[in-house]
Amino acid sequence: MGGIVITPEPPYYAVIFVSQRTEGDKGYGIMADKMVELASQQKGFLGVESARDEGLGITVSYWDSLEAIKDWKENSAHRVAQDRGKTEWYKNFSLRVCKVERDKFFEM
Amino acid sequence: MGGIVITPEPPYYAVIFVSQRTEGDKGYGIMADKMVELASQQKGFLGVESARDEGLGITVSYWDSLEAIKDWKENSAHRVAQDRGKTEWYKNFSLRVCKVERDKFFEM
Repeated sequence: MGGIVITPEPPYYAVIFVSQRTEGDKGYGIMADKMVELASQQKGFLGVESARDEGLGITVSYWDSLEAIKDWKENSAHRVAQDRGKTEWYKNFSLRVCKVERDKFFEM
Repeated sequence: MGGIVITPEPPYYAVIFVSQRTEGDKGYGIMADKMVELASQQKGFLGVESARDEGLGITVSYWDSLEAIKDWKENSAHRVAQDRGKTEWYKNFSLRVCKVERDKFFEM
């Protein structure tokens, strides 16, 4: 966890999830870790990148197909987390499903 | 600045820029602010979202066309910043150009 994800040749898919949290943890940290662990076991998962500061949290997950994204969306443990996200953890969020058309990596 | 960007109906484009910084500011903060200001004046710019923590920085900018992204890439002040990014500010980064196919917004 934690670094830049090295993905295969495009095209592949990205889900950009941007959120603003409510106050307090309320079990969020544990659930977030658990969701990354679960997503990683999902077929078609390519990796995830995450950053959060006072203003926003941005999580980008990468997938090999739209079907893999759909399967993850419908995963039952993930559905429970989605519901708690709406009622407890997030003030607001956006979710964008994208097709990555090209990419570039740079390392010093 | 600072919130979730409200974008028009898809399709539109996203550039996902993920980076790990070198130590120290070295003029990065001022340049980053200046680049957001300049990008905002660019034709076809739809908005930008950014978050950074100890591990990663993620900046997602939104554009109405691939041509707008190309114009911004070639902007001369931006080119200067790109060069300093490679030599001074970033240990590594990835850049992904994506077509946003669908999106969803949630507000409590």
